[in-house]
Amino acid sequence: MARTWEEKSGGVTAPQGFLAAGVAAGVKYKGRRDIALIFSEVPARAAGVFTTNLVKGAPVLVTMERIARGRARAVVVNSGNANTCNGEQGIRDARAMAQETARVLNIPEEDVLVASTGVIGQPMPMDRILPGIAAAARELSSGGGAAAAEAIMTTDTEPKETALSVTLSGYTVTIGGMAKGSGMIHPNMATMLCFITTDAAVSAPCLQEMLRHAVDRSFNMISVDGDTSTNDMVLALANGQAGNPEITAENEDYHLLRDALTEVCTRLARAVARDGEGATKLLEVKVINAASERDARLAARAVVASNLVKTAIYGQDANWGRIICAAGYSGAHFDPDRVDIYLGDIMVARDGVALSFDEEAASSVLAGREVRVLVDLKSGEYEATAWGCDLTGEYVNINASYRT
Amino acid sequence: MARTWEEKSGGVTAPQGFLAAGVAAGVKYKGRRDIALIFSEVPARAAGVFTTNLVKGAPVLVTMERIARGRARAVVVNSGNANTCNGEQGIRDARAMAQETARVLNIPEEDVLVASTGVIGQPMPMDRILPGIAAAARELSSGGGAAAAEAIMTTDTEPKETALSVTLSGYTVTIGGMAKGSGMIHPNMATMLCFITTDAAVSAPCLQEMLRHAVDRSFNMISVDGDTSTNDMVLALANGQAGNPEITAENEDYHLLRDALTEVCTRLARAVARDGEGATKLLEVKVINAASERDARLAARAVVASNLVKTAIYGQDANWGRIICAAGYSGAHFDPDRVDIYLGDIMVARDGVALSFDEEAASSVLAGREVRVLVDLKSGEYEATAWGCDLTGEYVNINASYRT
Repeated sequence: MARTWEEKSGGVTAPQGFLAAGVAAGVKYKGRRDIALIFSEVPARAAGVFTTNLVKGAPVLVTMERIARGRARAVVVNSGNANTCNGEQGIRDARAMAQETARVLNIPEEDVLVASTGVIGQPMPMDRILPGIAAAARELSSGGGAAAAEAIMTTDTEPKETALSVTLSGYTVTIGGMAKGSGMIHPNMATMLCFITTDAAVSAPCLQEMLRHAVDRSFNMISVDGDTSTNDMVLALANGQAGNPEITAENEDYHLLRDALTEVCTRLARAVARDGEGATKLLEVKVINAASERDARLAARAVVASNLVKTAIYGQDANWGRIICAAGYSGAHFDPDRVDIYLGDIMVARDGVALSFDEEAASSVLAGREVRVLVDLKSGEYEATAWGCDLTGEYVNINASYRT
Repeated sequence: MARTWEEKSGGVTAPQGFLAAGVAAGVKYKGRRDIALIFSEVPARAAGVFTTNLVKGAPVLVTMERIARGRARAVVVNSGNANTCNGEQGIRDARAMAQETARVLNIPEEDVLVASTGVIGQPMPMDRILPGIAAAARELSSGGGAAAAEAIMTTDTEPKETALSVTLSGYTVTIGGMAKGSGMIHPNMATMLCFITTDAAVSAPCLQEMLRHAVDRSFNMISVDGDTSTNDMVLALANGQAGNPEITAENEDYHLLRDALTEVCTRLARAVARDGEGATKLLEVKVINAASERDARLAARAVVASNLVKTAIYGQDANWGRIICAAGYSGAHFDPDRVDIYLGDIMVARDGVALSFDEEAASSVLAGREVRVLVDLKSGEYEATAWGCDLTGEYVNINASYRT
């Protein structure tokens, strides 16, 4: 199928009828944007995917409860404090953030979703957060996507946002998204924070299905450090302002929108992987010809998550033995004696055995800002791609002193 | 039960009737011991536990086949090359190592077990290894345990050996062991290389059961970097020279010997964790009052394996949120709102919520060479202990350029 996406600017405010803002409230640092607000001018359908960690942040618990209704109008987010392991007070604080947002926007409290990211187990500075929410509401604008994307950053080195449009039944529908990542990023979850907006008309159950599909192929295929956060969530709001016939079942529009949503999530997931804490390179691992999709996914994720693969990539060392080793313990089924491995376009192993290859050429593949690894299992017809980053001394530096 | 172990020196040569040697054959580096040989003067019972990685080194495949017979007299080991992903040639080379050992020791080839550790996917320098084996055989002695322990090291900074004796039915039985670890160390496997010798008389099936028990509580509870190697193996040889009545069923002697074997494995496992690549600290995580042994093990292993916990320990940052986060994604079942956490003797969280604690005291706990973490799940009566190390910039340095 030819892709008919058109690039857009504006992130979460690219779709019609969405406003956003990002302000500095001093949650953890002075003068750094740390409260983000997304607002739909009309009620929107809502869907969400959440962390699988047994320990969940208070905002996750509150938002999970609310998303079940399938509708929302606003998302309020703070960075600098995860509001996790704060007991009953944490739940009260997450609710208070929603209440204050509802009050200043004059909408029902249940229509507000809440997210937090930052340090675990420290009380929320509500005396700074609540005024921050009011300030964010005053700054809401149709150009506020970039400021909102900045406000959700923690150790991210750059904001992550994207937007594109697709034509559904003759109507132009736009999808925008923003995400934050950096550390505590690991597959098999709804990961980190990501907020998607679209002006498509789509039912809440369809939106939820599409989001699950997109997240499984994007955020659930990245790893920075193997740690699954307590606060991960991906939320999608669809306000129907594009005017397209509402999608309520699996028709052509459903697939067009789902593919576009998957593209938005994949772009943001790649951006999160590339900007992993301390990372200097994006690592893309594609596993092909697996016996099942599960095998392909397991193998791809194990390779991107391997500390030894990640350090070798950092060191530009074509140590492909670590790649097949990680695939071997991934739980995927395959015949080790049939595996071919490529670094970029250079074949380094055939049928599980070393080829003599040009070490210099391999090093120059590994010197790039993006390193592609292809693992051909030659045992079926399924494939999967995972993204990660190299492991550097800077990752250690960042995390040795994060809290203090 | 009162422990009646007596400390011994001599490592794998501490038990009666075992000789060992370690020589420099130039496998990878010049002038560094890299061939180890263990020899029992009489035929011995043998047991083994092997990597669960789908990709297995050639020596693993050869030794797994041979151990099924339950007997062996010699173990030959090289460091510097894992003999893995070398295809059919790898199998031929592993067999050739056994053949040469059998020839120089004048014993049947099937009585020789083989192990290799080092880089994956590079041909074995057999022209240097075979003469090395002959040289090792010439140097076999009852004081050769230390040289053998040195010869199996790769990035280890120190040799790891231990020995103790225990009284069984009035007979003094000695157990000795040596191990190498450092990188590619992760729970849920038979891990790295470890060789145990004992002069106890014990049947091969009982020895295998005891070894499985000991490994599950020791090597399978350590992690350095989350990567399960292709070459892990733990072998035990029992030659009966102590003269005790042969253990053939679960009697009092069985339990005494199993406990002593578990102690030997635990000491070596701790030594491997402490000497993890780049490590500056040993991390011991004990999970108590879990609903099942599985829950206790899962939680303890997830905490010691977490990159974020490991970097916080390195940075002496009492970031306990990362500890509960790791327990939360471990797969263990527990109520997050009941968890208590201690760093050393300092309680830092009660019922899943932060306590205000003395940050300086906590930092001084974390400044030690051994850091103990206690996680009380308060949901049952099972416990487990896992061992790991901190994650440092030096780990990255070592692994960014291991192969070259």
